[in-house]
Amino acid sequence: MARYTPPLRDMQFVMHELLDAESILKSLPAYADTGRELIDQVLEEGGKFCAEVLFPLNRSGDEEGCHWDDGAVTTPSGFREAWEQFKAGGWPTLTCDPEYGGQGLPMTVGIAFQEMMNSGNQAWTMYPGLTHGAYSALRAHGTPEQKSMYLPKIVSGQWMATMCLTEPQCGTDLGILRTKAEPQSDGSYRITGNKIFISSGEHDWAENIVHLVLARLPDAPSGTRGISLFLVPKFVPDADGSPGARNAVRCSRIEEKMGIHGNATCALDFDGAVGTLVGEPNKGLQAMFVMMNAARIGVGMQSLGLMEVAYQNSLDYAKERLQMRSLTGVKAPDKPADPIIVHPDVRRMLLTQKAWAEGSRAFACWLGLQADVAAAHPDADERAAAEDLLALLTPVVKAFLTDNGFASTNLALQVYGGHGYIREWGMEQYVRDARINMIYEGTNTIQSLDLLGRKVLLDSGAKLRKFGALVDAFVEEHGTDDEMAEFVNPLTELRQKVEKLTMEIGMKALGNADEAGAAAVDYLRVIGHLVLGYFWARMARVALDRADSDDAFYRAKLATARFYFAKLLPETAGLIRSARTGAAPLMNVELDWF
Amino acid sequence: MARYTPPLRDMQFVMHELLDAESILKSLPAYADTGRELIDQVLEEGGKFCAEVLFPLNRSGDEEGCHWDDGAVTTPSGFREAWEQFKAGGWPTLTCDPEYGGQGLPMTVGIAFQEMMNSGNQAWTMYPGLTHGAYSALRAHGTPEQKSMYLPKIVSGQWMATMCLTEPQCGTDLGILRTKAEPQSDGSYRITGNKIFISSGEHDWAENIVHLVLARLPDAPSGTRGISLFLVPKFVPDADGSPGARNAVRCSRIEEKMGIHGNATCALDFDGAVGTLVGEPNKGLQAMFVMMNAARIGVGMQSLGLMEVAYQNSLDYAKERLQMRSLTGVKAPDKPADPIIVHPDVRRMLLTQKAWAEGSRAFACWLGLQADVAAAHPDADERAAAEDLLALLTPVVKAFLTDNGFASTNLALQVYGGHGYIREWGMEQYVRDARINMIYEGTNTIQSLDLLGRKVLLDSGAKLRKFGALVDAFVEEHGTDDEMAEFVNPLTELRQKVEKLTMEIGMKALGNADEAGAAAVDYLRVIGHLVLGYFWARMARVALDRADSDDAFYRAKLATARFYFAKLLPETAGLIRSARTGAAPLMNVELDWF
Repeated sequence: MARYTPPLRDMQFVMHELLDAESILKSLPAYADTGRELIDQVLEEGGKFCAEVLFPLNRSGDEEGCHWDDGAVTTPSGFREAWEQFKAGGWPTLTCDPEYGGQGLPMTVGIAFQEMMNSGNQAWTMYPGLTHGAYSALRAHGTPEQKSMYLPKIVSGQWMATMCLTEPQCGTDLGILRTKAEPQSDGSYRITGNKIFISSGEHDWAENIVHLVLARLPDAPSGTRGISLFLVPKFVPDADGSPGARNAVRCSRIEEKMGIHGNATCALDFDGAVGTLVGEPNKGLQAMFVMMNAARIGVGMQSLGLMEVAYQNSLDYAKERLQMRSLTGVKAPDKPADPIIVHPDVRRMLLTQKAWAEGSRAFACWLGLQADVAAAHPDADERAAAEDLLALLTPVVKAFLTDNGFASTNLALQVYGGHGYIREWGMEQYVRDARINMIYEGTNTIQSLDLLGRKVLLDSGAKLRKFGALVDAFVEEHGTDDEMAEFVNPLTELRQKVEKLTMEIGMKALGNADEAGAAAVDYLRVIGHLVLGYFWARMARVALDRADSDDAFYRAKLATARFYFAKLLPETAGLIRSARTGAAPLMNVELDWF
Repeated sequence: MARYTPPLRDMQFVMHELLDAESILKSLPAYADTGRELIDQVLEEGGKFCAEVLFPLNRSGDEEGCHWDDGAVTTPSGFREAWEQFKAGGWPTLTCDPEYGGQGLPMTVGIAFQEMMNSGNQAWTMYPGLTHGAYSALRAHGTPEQKSMYLPKIVSGQWMATMCLTEPQCGTDLGILRTKAEPQSDGSYRITGNKIFISSGEHDWAENIVHLVLARLPDAPSGTRGISLFLVPKFVPDADGSPGARNAVRCSRIEEKMGIHGNATCALDFDGAVGTLVGEPNKGLQAMFVMMNAARIGVGMQSLGLMEVAYQNSLDYAKERLQMRSLTGVKAPDKPADPIIVHPDVRRMLLTQKAWAEGSRAFACWLGLQADVAAAHPDADERAAAEDLLALLTPVVKAFLTDNGFASTNLALQVYGGHGYIREWGMEQYVRDARINMIYEGTNTIQSLDLLGRKVLLDSGAKLRKFGALVDAFVEEHGTDDEMAEFVNPLTELRQKVEKLTMEIGMKALGNADEAGAAAVDYLRVIGHLVLGYFWARMARVALDRADSDDAFYRAKLATARFYFAKLLPETAGLIRSARTGAAPLMNVELDWF
């Protein structure tokens, strides 16, 4: 009943008119050939796959779920066949290194494709998503032998992969993980322990599954400095690379969850499984963080994808559903009632979704460009500058987009009224699926502590000033432009408030570290608005430049920018007040007062 | 794994120390005997039933759901037996009229009991809840014959009842409903049409189910002025009152939903079913609104119940789950990590739930007293004054508590991290169950339009000024009290801002009705904070008076009041800004720009 149309027009606007991705990519030798036509072509073809192959499996995958039988896991009907088609189309290789069989396209394109995959089917997309995460970690930290044995097969999709971090007693706090790795005389290790919440941990899609597992060596220091990363294949490859002996890793159950039912969330028992070390001993967390940072952006893309598809459907419904008359007079006299889109609050719910989705898309694609510049620019200073922006805003793209994604899919459900609560319309699935994104790959509280503590306060705001400089340059350029005043003025005001708030929290946190912890969640949302305010102002500028165009797209963009500044940005007023009240109202509460 | 402990101590605080319910009830002849001891005893016994009988069926009811087989509906295991126990304990009769076998207790007590029932099991509680709604409508508008035939059996729980409003093409907009009622020569009617989303519409609990059905007479005017209310029993009673011939009403399916799986949401087909008129022809909506207003308060109680039980469990988890060390130094040196309740943001999540739940409880019990005064005070002016406050704040208790209930249960889930997303812990069920409360009995948008349009602007703010007078009196009494300044000052500021905002919207709405529609949702949340701010200030005053007590309860209450004013009330700053930007950002958007 639901539908999905890839938002190609908006993606083209962001890529070409807003960000001029082509010019930036041209400055990166590895991506110099990724011109506008190639980008458009990949997105068009990719979008078609997402809409035609992945999307039709979304509701059925949710209904059917995964099934566990004596250690084996079956995924929903059609999932595996879609993976075969995905491989046949070469999609797993899209942004991978040509050295291992990849097509070598930039992350900017990969991010836009991720959005569409998740609009099509988040649970399905997690299987290749985790595999790609493991690819990134292995490529950065694997030994030459690991790379040549595993990477070509992972890139092609012949083998798949997982990331095994969580254990029953440790989620956020990896310092207390217990899984053990015992060195063997042949240089390999025997891994023993229980991992839980392993997404895509077992399934029937590939002839082999490569687990990247965090574990402790016998002599490891306690805490996070004693964690190493190991590669543990489900089948230990023979010398010729074909899957050999079954390794001692077993899926002992899959979880019953609120959503993402099409993805197998596995408990994996390692019982002396054969593994090899990835990277240096006791430096497993650093190796894992290569994957984790990409995964955090990926989670943001999951929520962006859900926002977009839920928006499209609630928009259709609001145009079709007849209920009540407009307060300002009948709008559809030939019908028994007006379509609900005439009502102001239905418009608020629709425009909120639209503003979050389009603003997030601009932010995410820009962040993809920063990732590409950070990875591939010939100039080290340029790389470092982009790396700083990427590091600063990765927790923001994860937490801000996933909080908004949950709110946004809930608005889509609400537009449907009672029908939104019924399964067949599909909206409630988006809400259930979106909910996990606020939790995994580091809860949104952890993201906010990463932003405020590590990314902002630790370097005395240096990274934040780099983003601030972009805002300042924009304000400087358009600050005297009358038609931009409605965007530039609130952006400037917020920019100044952020500076003041950051200094204030920084000073307080010097005396009491809980002051940072108390302000962090509010602070991240404020920064999220600074970022989205900046991109909405830039989009408004582009739209104003095309105001004479016949294309309603630009008038729509301008109207959505106005909506954002009028109705969403004001949230910052309350957030800043709340943040400024500090830690006392939280910490001056005895345990038995709760 | 989860637990529920009835919050008797807090209920006693609200009833006796905050509101002095006993004194107010003493002034109402019908309730003059409802003293403190009786209230406490009923709540204690009722709480025991909710915790020991209803709560253990909550998770299993969600897992098992309801089953439809050729028109018959089976509810989850244990549900029917719990109803037998409920009846045996006389609980259905609690607040019913003694004339029909009720115990005649005031709504104030009924509301507190409702909260606990919903903490125990919302899906179960909906069966007696709908029955009670039908009781209220029949008692107010039934003929003497209908009352004598049906009310005693409904009050005792021997028969149950439903409310049949929604049809496929009409939910919010009852004016377009199509179900027909054809008069018969014997004075009865034949009802034909399709109703959907009928909660508790069919089940195996009672020997008869009495449907109250909205339908149109042949000569009825179009729109809401042509709707009549009919009583349509599943089995037409014989003259002696025993269930006779099976009536032509059939459950054609039950819905698959996001939550409240233990409640049967039915599509009911009426095919010339025999019915009798309730109230006057074409005045069915007025009769239905007797039920609707009570039901809206009931929905608020559903969310309060869920907030409380989810809070209790997330609190337990936060005290037990060990993860990371406190930023200000190790707190549990004998353990591998500190309990997560040491972290500021976990405390924010817990205290937010606690502040919403306790503030809502005070508000709801006070509203229950208004309902009792409105129904039973000997003085007409007193009745009218209470009726005005009740009318004003019914949409607020429905929408504000259910929005907060959804946010609150989501915070409970978030405290559990990944475990919150897993079914076995039970938190995700609370989120799924809480979601419907924002929709049914009038969506929260409808509540906000009712508040701003009908309750505030239509009488030029007269009802709002009555609530404002309570706030003013409190401010006047405690405004020069230094230790109350931290509560009275922000309350006073908000009070003034509400007055200004109301006038501003009122003026704008005179020129453009969409201005009210655009501001309504923000406005309702602002009023919600004015109400909760008032009660939190009053609770702080009581707690300060007991500051020397050994009972930590009062220090906890004071700390929670401080948290509310520091971290939750500031939301109003953004809401007021957003509301003031008016309708243009919503309405100046062409249809094809969405």
